[in-house]
Amino acid sequence: MTATVPADLDTFFGSNRARIEHELFDFLRIPSVSARSEHNADTARAAQWLAGAFGAAGLKAEVIPTGGHPVVLGEWRGAGADRPTVLVYGHYDVQPAEPLGLWTTPAFEPTVRDGRIYARGSVDDKGQLYLHVKAIEAHLRVRGRLPINIIVLAEGEEEVGSDNLGDFVRAHRDRLRCDAVVISDSSMFAPGQPSILSSLRGLTYLQLDVEGPSSDLHSGIYGGGVINPATALARIIATFHDANGRIAIPGFYDSVRDWDPATRAHMRALPFSDANLLKEVGSPALGGEAGYTTLERLWRRPTCEINGLLSGYTAEGAKTVLPSRAMAKVSCRLVPDQDPAVIEKLLQAHVERVAPAGVRVRVTHLHGGRPWRADLKGPLFDAATLALEAAFHRTPVIVGEGGSIPVVDDFVQALGAPILLMGFGLPGENAHAPDEWMSVENFELGMRAVATLWDLM
Amino acid sequence: MTATVPADLDTFFGSNRARIEHELFDFLRIPSVSARSEHNADTARAAQWLAGAFGAAGLKAEVIPTGGHPVVLGEWRGAGADRPTVLVYGHYDVQPAEPLGLWTTPAFEPTVRDGRIYARGSVDDKGQLYLHVKAIEAHLRVRGRLPINIIVLAEGEEEVGSDNLGDFVRAHRDRLRCDAVVISDSSMFAPGQPSILSSLRGLTYLQLDVEGPSSDLHSGIYGGGVINPATALARIIATFHDANGRIAIPGFYDSVRDWDPATRAHMRALPFSDANLLKEVGSPALGGEAGYTTLERLWRRPTCEINGLLSGYTAEGAKTVLPSRAMAKVSCRLVPDQDPAVIEKLLQAHVERVAPAGVRVRVTHLHGGRPWRADLKGPLFDAATLALEAAFHRTPVIVGEGGSIPVVDDFVQALGAPILLMGFGLPGENAHAPDEWMSVENFELGMRAVATLWDLM
Repeated sequence: MTATVPADLDTFFGSNRARIEHELFDFLRIPSVSARSEHNADTARAAQWLAGAFGAAGLKAEVIPTGGHPVVLGEWRGAGADRPTVLVYGHYDVQPAEPLGLWTTPAFEPTVRDGRIYARGSVDDKGQLYLHVKAIEAHLRVRGRLPINIIVLAEGEEEVGSDNLGDFVRAHRDRLRCDAVVISDSSMFAPGQPSILSSLRGLTYLQLDVEGPSSDLHSGIYGGGVINPATALARIIATFHDANGRIAIPGFYDSVRDWDPATRAHMRALPFSDANLLKEVGSPALGGEAGYTTLERLWRRPTCEINGLLSGYTAEGAKTVLPSRAMAKVSCRLVPDQDPAVIEKLLQAHVERVAPAGVRVRVTHLHGGRPWRADLKGPLFDAATLALEAAFHRTPVIVGEGGSIPVVDDFVQALGAPILLMGFGLPGENAHAPDEWMSVENFELGMRAVATLWDLM
Repeated sequence: MTATVPADLDTFFGSNRARIEHELFDFLRIPSVSARSEHNADTARAAQWLAGAFGAAGLKAEVIPTGGHPVVLGEWRGAGADRPTVLVYGHYDVQPAEPLGLWTTPAFEPTVRDGRIYARGSVDDKGQLYLHVKAIEAHLRVRGRLPINIIVLAEGEEEVGSDNLGDFVRAHRDRLRCDAVVISDSSMFAPGQPSILSSLRGLTYLQLDVEGPSSDLHSGIYGGGVINPATALARIIATFHDANGRIAIPGFYDSVRDWDPATRAHMRALPFSDANLLKEVGSPALGGEAGYTTLERLWRRPTCEINGLLSGYTAEGAKTVLPSRAMAKVSCRLVPDQDPAVIEKLLQAHVERVAPAGVRVRVTHLHGGRPWRADLKGPLFDAATLALEAAFHRTPVIVGEGGSIPVVDDFVQALGAPILLMGFGLPGENAHAPDEWMSVENFELGMRAVATLWDLM
């Protein structure tokens, strides 16, 4: 069986292309940085803007407060009780844009270059969320109806751990009841190669503070007699891995499930190029846990990464200071069946065990999320395969994903519906870095694939 | 033999106390931060201000350009060729004041609380330099002459490594020829306990940059397959010491001379209290190289300290970034006969040897200075002992100093005169930290001790 993108919808996307891009750019201009309190008003404005866009598309829209940034809900339930209900999830918040100086064009001034939309949030996730809104609009404008009932749930806290979304989903379990969850917040394996996700890594994100003297000291007068918190922090971090790149925190791998042979074989068959990745990232060499391929390291194996370091004097020139404190942001990517709360406890216990006398250590939870593995059988998976083939003229591959979408686990727990993750990002898209971009072609074909999917369910 | 502070000079200091403090505060208000280019105009202003103060004291003053901040020279050569010539050295530049939020009162708004002058530069070194200027003024105003010929040399680059002073001293070797060098840029052993320095540690100050991917990456998408520069930096730093706190850089201790038994016994007899130091610094415990007392760790043994760390995301909240780069400021305090250039090479070679594949490392020289050991015999030392006894009513002790005054070595090499280091700082003075202070009493008695010293030479 094959499918094609319905001609009426395809025509709609074609003739509304300029307007749709214009609207998306308005969305991207709002600096809805959820992690930074100085952007709270912007994040609230993005929620209101999105509710307006839901309404314009033909959805009943509502901005619903939470303990943090609000949820924006859009609903259309006119397909009838015998038709499936699909919940589409996305997020309207974005990562901080710093360091601003490394952007070629300003982070919140979307610019098209070489077929890419450059802007913070272009691919993660405003562009991918907005293509869903426009796929719905195409059905409702062209045909006056959708073949399914639909709920669009957009949150504003994905980049800070979706702390309030679990409660929201549980509290609105009845309203959100559905037959499938569809999420576009991930990447395709390669340009032109549509992809369906089989797994997500989970996350434990912590801050590690090491405190020594009560104020910064002169490193000449006190150096040698007072334990240096920056040195202590480095020595603690150095115990996180062994010489083979394996994480050396006791108990860390206890719950790691191995992949089944079929999935492992499929992953090994993917035409992945270490050389291309190396070129993309610009490091002098790749590396990681011994005994695994790069794709396995990225999709199948857990990590323990340092996301930030700060201590003492870091500006121009030299200052002979023995710092009072040192800080690291530490995050572990987790794989089934690791539990973020358990990993956090293991890491905390390890840090306390290895910390030298002479400093105090403090481990603070910032956020976390459970890993996830998909069920790759059933009508949802089959329909998605056809819809992606229709839009991209190529059979999708099954891929893993090193990133985390913590809310997936909330949907698993609260709604029990199968979850489809089909993303339209691309390798090298700089999702959390300067010069984030989304492919214009993927935005266009993504709208078509999604619009086609609703016809196939 | 005992001495007293001459009554005429003592009276001068007493009756001019308010004026002298007022002048010192004007000096302290100038933010002459030599490390920061945005303060270049302030540093130049401090030099001009000081030249004016030299003139007011009765010295012939000159501001002499160098490759960096200028030298301010003051001279009075009216004592005759048969009298000794003394060179007094000090510096008018100060450390950066950051973090500004930790100052109780603003860094450049001098404030007296509890008998202490709080300001950046109060003790390091503007206050100690200025008490010399006022000791000269006392002689010239009260008696119309000094018993010695005197040169006051104040530099503006001590806090950034005195990079131009060596050349300056060599170029002006004839003009600076002298029978003794006197420096007050160090601390007394305890309140009321005058002290003469027997040694200074040298310094090698480097910046260590670790570079991985060409831009920041998403730690989920890339984590596990790309070597993390922050983790790599921590692992490199962790190799700097062994488990006993001994520096593990091969060859590091090769040139370290042991102290002679007499000096070691004198140091061990000093009433030093680990408990007091612990209370002063506020750490949970002291620590350092196994097998040495705290005083030996501070004065006699070399160190390798981390002065700063910076990588990735360090602001509020969480950002799942795999940083492109990581930076550490690293400085080693050196003891006789370690050579800073040799230590720098050893450290660079060590870093290159232990750095993992997958990152580039770069070691950049920031500054350095040789360690120094005093000759504690002879008329200069004897006169200083008497002068300090006269002012403080207590026999000075011989102490070491963990800090560095790189220019001492330039004087040793270029002038060949004996050097006397008698400082009037105190433990806990926060010389390179927020809330730097100088004891008002030490400023007053320091002027008297110095003025008395000139009578005894």
